[in-house]
Amino acid sequence: YRTPVSEDFAGGYPSDEEWHGYINNNDRVLLKTINFASPNSAGAVCIDPDCTWVEQWVHRAGPREKIYFKPEEVKAAIVTCGGLCPGLNDVIRQVVITLEIYGVKSIVGIPFGYRGFSNSDLSEMPLSRKVVQNIHLSGGSLLGVSRGGPSVSDIVDRMQEKGINMIFVLGGNGTHAGANAIHEECRKRKLKVAVVGVPKTIDNDILLMDKTFGFDTAVEEAQRAINSAYIEAHSAYHGVGIVKLMGRHSGFIAMHASLASGQIDICLIPEVPFQLHGPHGVLTHLKYLIETKGSAVVCVAEGAGQNLLQKTNATDASGNMVLGDIGVHIQQETKKYFREIGVHADVKYIDPTYMIRACRANASDGILCAVLGQNAVSFPLIPLPPL
Amino acid sequence: YRTPVSEDFAGGYPSDEEWHGYINNNDRVLLKTINFASPNSAGAVCIDPDCTWVEQWVHRAGPREKIYFKPEEVKAAIVTCGGLCPGLNDVIRQVVITLEIYGVKSIVGIPFGYRGFSNSDLSEMPLSRKVVQNIHLSGGSLLGVSRGGPSVSDIVDRMQEKGINMIFVLGGNGTHAGANAIHEECRKRKLKVAVVGVPKTIDNDILLMDKTFGFDTAVEEAQRAINSAYIEAHSAYHGVGIVKLMGRHSGFIAMHASLASGQIDICLIPEVPFQLHGPHGVLTHLKYLIETKGSAVVCVAEGAGQNLLQKTNATDASGNMVLGDIGVHIQQETKKYFREIGVHADVKYIDPTYMIRACRANASDGILCAVLGQNAVSFPLIPLPPL
Amino acid sequence: YRTPVSEDFAGGYPSDEEWHGYINNNDRVLLKTINFASPNSAGAVCIDPDCTWVEQWVHRAGPREKIYFKPEEVKAAIVTCGGLCPGLNDVIRQVVITLEIYGVKSIVGIPFGYRGFSNSDLSEMPLSRKVVQNIHLSGGSLLGVSRGGPSVSDIVDRMQEKGINMIFVLGGNGTHAGANAIHEECRKRKLKVAVVGVPKTIDNDILLMDKTFGFDTAVEEAQRAINSAYIEAHSAYHGVGIVKLMGRHSGFIAMHASLASGQIDICLIPEVPFQLHGPHGVLTHLKYLIETKGSAVVCVAEGAGQNLLQKTNATDASGNMVLGDIGVHIQQETKKYFREIGVHADVKYIDPTYMIRACRANASDGILCAVLGQNAVSFPLIPLPPL
Amino acid sequence: YRTPVSEDFAGGYPSDEEWHGYINNNDRVLLKTINFASPNSAGAVCIDPDCTWVEQWVHRAGPREKIYFKPEEVKAAIVTCGGLCPGLNDVIRQVVITLEIYGVKSIVGIPFGYRGFSNSDLSEMPLSRKVVQNIHLSGGSLLGVSRGGPSVSDIVDRMQEKGINMIFVLGGNGTHAGANAIHEECRKRKLKVAVVGVPKTIDNDILLMDKTFGFDTAVEEAQRAINSAYIEAHSAYHGVGIVKLMGRHSGFIAMHASLASGQIDICLIPEVPFQLHGPHGVLTHLKYLIETKGSAVVCVAEGAGQNLLQKTNATDASGNMVLGDIGVHIQQETKKYFREIGVHADVKYIDPTYMIRACRANASDGILCAVLGQNAVSFPLIPLPPL
Repeated sequence: YRTPVSEDFAGGYPSDEEWHGYINNNDRVLLKTINFASPNSAGAVCIDPDCTWVEQWVHRAGPREKIYFKPEEVKAAIVTCGGLCPGLNDVIRQVVITLEIYGVKSIVGIPFGYRGFSNSDLSEMPLSRKVVQNIHLSGGSLLGVSRGGPSVSDIVDRMQEKGINMIFVLGGNGTHAGANAIHEECRKRKLKVAVVGVPKTIDNDILLMDKTFGFDTAVEEAQRAINSAYIEAHSAYHGVGIVKLMGRHSGFIAMHASLASGQIDICLIPEVPFQLHGPHGVLTHLKYLIETKGSAVVCVAEGAGQNLLQKTNATDASGNMVLGDIGVHIQQETKKYFREIGVHADVKYIDPTYMIRACRANASDGILCAVLGQNAVSFPLIPLPPL
Repeated sequence: YRTPVSEDFAGGYPSDEEWHGYINNNDRVLLKTINFASPNSAGAVCIDPDCTWVEQWVHRAGPREKIYFKPEEVKAAIVTCGGLCPGLNDVIRQVVITLEIYGVKSIVGIPFGYRGFSNSDLSEMPLSRKVVQNIHLSGGSLLGVSRGGPSVSDIVDRMQEKGINMIFVLGGNGTHAGANAIHEECRKRKLKVAVVGVPKTIDNDILLMDKTFGFDTAVEEAQRAINSAYIEAHSAYHGVGIVKLMGRHSGFIAMHASLASGQIDICLIPEVPFQLHGPHGVLTHLKYLIETKGSAVVCVAEGAGQNLLQKTNATDASGNMVLGDIGVHIQQETKKYFREIGVHADVKYIDPTYMIRACRANASDGILCAVLGQNAVSFPLIPLPPL
Repeated sequence: YRTPVSEDFAGGYPSDEEWHGYINNNDRVLLKTINFASPNSAGAVCIDPDCTWVEQWVHRAGPREKIYFKPEEVKAAIVTCGGLCPGLNDVIRQVVITLEIYGVKSIVGIPFGYRGFSNSDLSEMPLSRKVVQNIHLSGGSLLGVSRGGPSVSDIVDRMQEKGINMIFVLGGNGTHAGANAIHEECRKRKLKVAVVGVPKTIDNDILLMDKTFGFDTAVEEAQRAINSAYIEAHSAYHGVGIVKLMGRHSGFIAMHASLASGQIDICLIPEVPFQLHGPHGVLTHLKYLIETKGSAVVCVAEGAGQNLLQKTNATDASGNMVLGDIGVHIQQETKKYFREIGVHADVKYIDPTYMIRACRANASDGILCAVLGQNAVSFPLIPLPPL
Repeated sequence: YRTPVSEDFAGGYPSDEEWHGYINNNDRVLLKTINFASPNSAGAVCIDPDCTWVEQWVHRAGPREKIYFKPEEVKAAIVTCGGLCPGLNDVIRQVVITLEIYGVKSIVGIPFGYRGFSNSDLSEMPLSRKVVQNIHLSGGSLLGVSRGGPSVSDIVDRMQEKGINMIFVLGGNGTHAGANAIHEECRKRKLKVAVVGVPKTIDNDILLMDKTFGFDTAVEEAQRAINSAYIEAHSAYHGVGIVKLMGRHSGFIAMHASLASGQIDICLIPEVPFQLHGPHGVLTHLKYLIETKGSAVVCVAEGAGQNLLQKTNATDASGNMVLGDIGVHIQQETKKYFREIGVHADVKYIDPTYMIRACRANASDGILCAVLGQNAVSFPLIPLPPL
C-alpha cells in the first residue's frame, strides 16, 4: 500500500555512512535518572527490604543495519497466553505489519495460547496486513488466549513439524518462563529459532519498564467503575462504595485510578499492609468519613490484604496462586461492622475486572503497542553482547 | 434568562380564542393502535393468563389554560425514592425550571427519599434554576435516594410544618403507594396539597407507558457489559460469557439489550420459564453452542428462573422480595455441568448493575425526562373528570 | 448456529390453527392516536398550510404465513445509496441474517450504491451471516455508498444478467424514486422481481414514521458537539458557541439535540422563519444573552434560514439542492455584529456533521434497524390489497 | 476530610532525620537518557539546525522540608490564560486542594485570564476544596480563559490592592512572558510575591518536558475524528478523508494520533516540508492510494505547509501569528486536482479542534495535572541555587 520508492527519490537520501535510521548495537538507555543528593531524600531508599540493585543500562531497541534471518526463509508464529489485556490485538497487528515490511511472507497465529500447539482441533491461522488491518478496533485477542498447554518438548516438536523458526510470545511471567524453556529446547536441538517475548501484564508490575501495555487503558476504564461507586455512595444515605481493581502483587492500577478520579477516600494496595478492625483500621476511618462527609468510596487492589483472608493454596492453570476475594470480604465486613455499631450504611460493591480487560486499547496504549510490535520484530534476533 | 416578551411582539400572536398552545381537558390519547384482523394474528392474544382489559383512552398531559394554584402561594417539594435510575436529575431539573417559569419561587428538595421527612439531621435543600442548571450532566440524584421512611402521618405532619402544598414524588410502585396514602391523609386533613407522582422504573415494567425513563440508557449501557462478555467468550477456548441485567418481573432490559447487541446466544427472562438441565435445558444448548461455534454468550434478567432458586422470603426496605441471584447460580451450574461432562469451558460472569444505574441519562432519556418534568408541573393539579 | 428444532420439541407447539406467530394480511396500525376535544387544542391544527390529510391506517409489517418466493430460487441483492447514516450496517446485517433464516442462500451486496450496477471495476460482494456478524460494530456501510448511478434500464439489464430477483434498497427519497422506477421497469419486462425499500434519512423527515434509523444516534452524538460549544462559550469572556446540525428540510435533530442537552439558548430550524438583524432578530437576542448571562449557545439546522443566503441553484448527484452554509453565515454575521456595536464577543463554530454520520448505531437504533431489516424480508413480497 | 493524625499514630513514624518524604533541594533529574554509541545512530544528531545543547540536569520537583511563606499569610490567586486545554480544571483543583493541605485559607480565582485584573465587572472568585471538588469532571476552565489583558503595571497594582502574594499562572509562552514580567515588576517594587508558572500547551511543544497536560487527551479524542474520516473515506467510492489537528509549530498531536489510529495514510507536520503538486507531491500519492486501495485518509497539523499559503501577518490577542488554514487548502486542492485529472474523488474534511480542546482530561492527564498542581504548590517558592 506504500508508493514504491523510486530510484530518483532514494537518490535523495544520504549515503549509508551518513544514514541515521539504525540503532547501533552498542546504544544503551539509562534506567535510573534521579540523582538523590541525600540518603533520606524522598524515594532514595527502596521500601522493599528485598530490593536488589538493578542494572543501570539496558540495550536500546529498534531496527539494526544487519538482520540475522533472510525474510524469505522465515516462518513466523504469534501466540497470546494468559488472560485478556487491552492492546493484544495492537501488538499482533504491528508484528504482522512489520514482518511484512521486512519481507516476511509466512506468518501464522497459534490459536488459544500454547494450547494451540496441542489440540488437534485447532489449526494455525494465516496472518497478513489484510487480516489484521482493523483488529485493533476490538478488544480481546484475534488468536484467542488460554492458560497452560502441552509440554515444552511437544511444543517444539510441533514447531518443527510446522517449520516455524520465529515465534512471538505475548504473555505474563509464566508464559515467558515457557518461552525461555522453548528457547533452551531449541538450542539443545540446535534449531535456529528466534523466540521473542513481549511482556504482557495489565498490572504494570515489571520492575524495568516504565509502563506495560494495557495499563493505561485499564486506569482509564476504571474511572467508569469508580465514578459509578462515587455516584452510588453520594446518592445514598450513608453510602459506601467499594471498587475492586486488578493488581495481584502491586497497587499501580488501584493507585493511579484513584489519583485520576479524585473521588476515592481510601485506596488499599498489596504493598501497604492494613487492618480492617481496630482504632487505625479501615472500618474506623469509614465510620469517621460517614460521620463527617456522609459517604465514602474505597478502591482496593485484588492482591491487597491477603493476610486477612484464609489461604486457599489453590493455583490456576498458569500456576498463579488463587487469591481470596478481598473485595467481597471488605464489603461483608463493612456491612457487619455498621450493623454492629448501629449506624445505617448503604454498601455497594463493584467488580469491573472483565469489563476493563476486554476493552480495546486507548490511544496511548495503541502507540505503546505499535512501538512494542515494531521493536519485537526489529530487534536483532541473535544474542546481544552482554552489557 | 429569556428576553422579556415585548408588548409589540406579543401583539403578533393570535387572540386567546385562536391560541393553540393549551391542552383541552377533554383531549384523549388512544393506547391500543393495532387492529388485529384475526384472533390468532401475532400478539392478538395476551400470553399472560391474568391479563385484564386495559382502558383504551388516557388523559392527555400538558399545559392547561387554567391552573389551580396561584404560583406565589405554592411551596413545592421534590423527593426521589428507591434505587438509582438514569434521568432522576433530569426530571428534578425540569420540574424546577418549569415551576420557575410558572412563577413558583419556593422550591425545595427533600433529601434521601421519604427518610428526609424524619431524620433530624437532614434539612431541605433550596432549589432554583441556578442550582439545577447542570445536574443532568451527572448520574445519581442530587437529592439522594433511599428506601423506606417514616409513617404517612409523620410525613404529612412535617409537610404541614414546612408549609409544603405541592409535592413531586419520583419512585417505584411502593413509593407511589406511599404518595397515594399521603394524598389520602391530606384529603382527610382537608389540606389543599397536590401530590404528583412521576413513575420511576428502570425495568420499564409499567403496562400503560411506552417507555419509562432510564430504560433506554440502561439498554445502551448494557452494551458495554455484553460486548465485554462477548470478547471474553470469543477470546477464550470454549468461552462462556454470562451477563446479568436488571428486570425483577420483566425481561425488557435483557431482551432489548440482547437484540441491540447482536451478540447474545441465549436470553433468559422472567416471562418465559426455562430449565437449566435436561434435553431442552439451557446447559444442553450451551454444550451445543460450544461444540458448533466454540463459544456462547448468555444474558439473564435478574428476575428470571426464580423457581430454580431457594426462596428467601426476605424483603428490602421498599418491601420488594429479595431475589435469589440467578446470575451466580447459572455461572456455578454451568461450571459444574461442563466439569461433569468432561468438556473444557471457560466461564466468565459480569454483573454491571451499579455501573448502569449510576449513569447519566442519554439523549433519548434526557428528552423523555424533560417532557415528564414539564408535564408533571403542567398537569392540572385538580382531579380530572373521569374518562 | 441455532439448535435444530427436534420433532419432539416442535410437538410442544400448538397446531397451526392456534399458532400466534404470523401477521394477518389484514392487520392494520392506526397512525393518529390523539383525540382533540377542540380545534384550538394544542397540535390540533397543522401549521403547514400544505398539510394534507394522511391515511389513518397502515399495513402491519412482519412475518406472513405464506411467502411468495421459494427461498432456494431467490438471489437477493442489497444496495445502500446517498450519504452515510448510522445503522446502515445494522440493516444490511439483519436483512442477510433474516434471508438466511428463510433459507435464501444467494445474497450479494452491490458496491457503492447504484453506481455498483455500472462500474466495470466493481464486482458484487457475497454476503452471509459469517460476513456480516460484527459489521454493526462499525459505522459507515460495508457495501459503500454513493450518489447517482446509471440509467434505470442499465440497472435492470445488469440485474437480469446477474439473476437478481430480490433487491433491498436503502436510501433517501431520490433513491426510492429510483427503486420505484426499477420496479416499473421490471413489471414492464414482466420480471418477477421484488423491490423492497428501506427508507434512510438521518433527518427523520418522513411524515408517516415515528422515527427513522440513525436519527436517535445523531441526536445522541450531537451532544458532544453541543457540550463542546457550551464549554467553549462558558469558558470564554462573552463566549458565543454555534453548532450546525443536520436537517435539510426539518429541525428534528437540532430541536431534539437542543432539548436533550439543556444547554442551548437559541435553536433555529427550517420550519420557523427568523431574522438575524432587527429588534426581534437573533443577534439582538444574542446581545441580550451576553449582557445577562455572559455567554450563549446557538444550535442551527443546516436547512434553517435559507432565505437569508444567496441561492446557488446547484444540485448534488442525488438531485438535492446544494444549500448555502447557514452555520458559517451566522458565525460571520455574529462576529460582524458585535464588532460593529463595540462589544467583545468570542465566537466559536462547530460543524460535527461527518463525525455524527460516521458513528455506529446506538442501542436504540440498533433495535430499530434489526426490526426494519427483519420486516423488510418478512413483508409479503407481493402487492397487498389496498387499504 | 482526613482523619486527624493522632499523637499515637504520628509516634509510629521515624524521627525527622529518617523521614524520607521530602525532596532535597539538591536532587536532580537527568534529561537525556540514551547513550549513542555512534554519531550516526538513529536520533544521535538533531535534525533541527538551530538545535542547541540542552542542560542535562534539572531540579527535582516536590515537597520541601522548609517552605518560605507562612500559610496563614498567603493570599493565593489562580489565573488561566490563552485557549482551552483539557486538564485546566484538574490543575486548578489540585492547586487549591494542596494549598489547603498546607494551611492556606485565602485562595481566589481571577476570571478570564489576565483580563480579570482589568475589567471592573469581573470580581475574583473564592476557591476552596468544596468549590473545586468535582470541577475536573467537566472540560473548560472554571475561571474562564482569554487572550491579552491589561499592562503588567496595572496587573501588579491590582494584585497589591487585593493583597495577592502568590499567583499561579496557567498558560502558553506569551502568558509566561507575562508572568515573568509580573515577577520582575514585583521584584522592582520589592514585593514578596511568588509567581508560579504551569506551562499549558496542548501541542506538547516544550523541549524539556516529556509531555504537557492535555496532550494525551487530545490524541485520544482525535481518534474519533480520524475514525470518522476513515469510515467516510472507506464507505465512499474513491473516498478521501482529511483531518486537521492542532499543532502550530509541531506535529506531535498529528503524529501520535495517526500512529495510534492505524488508519492514516499520509501525516503532514510542520517539521517536515512537503509539496502538494509534482511527482513527489501529496496529490500524486493520493492518486496512487485511490488507484491501489480505493480510498485514503490524511492527517494534517494546523502548522504544516504554511509555506504553501499566503502569509497574513495578522496576530491574535496572544501575539500568535494567525495561520493560514492548511486543512481547507488541502481539501480544495485535492478536489481541484482530481477534477482536473478526471478521476472521481469524494473528499470529506473534518476539523475537530474545538471538540477536542473542550474535553475533560482523560485519566492519564488527570494524574499528570494532579502532580503538576501539587508540585506547583510544593515547589520552594524562593529562587533555587543554580544548577
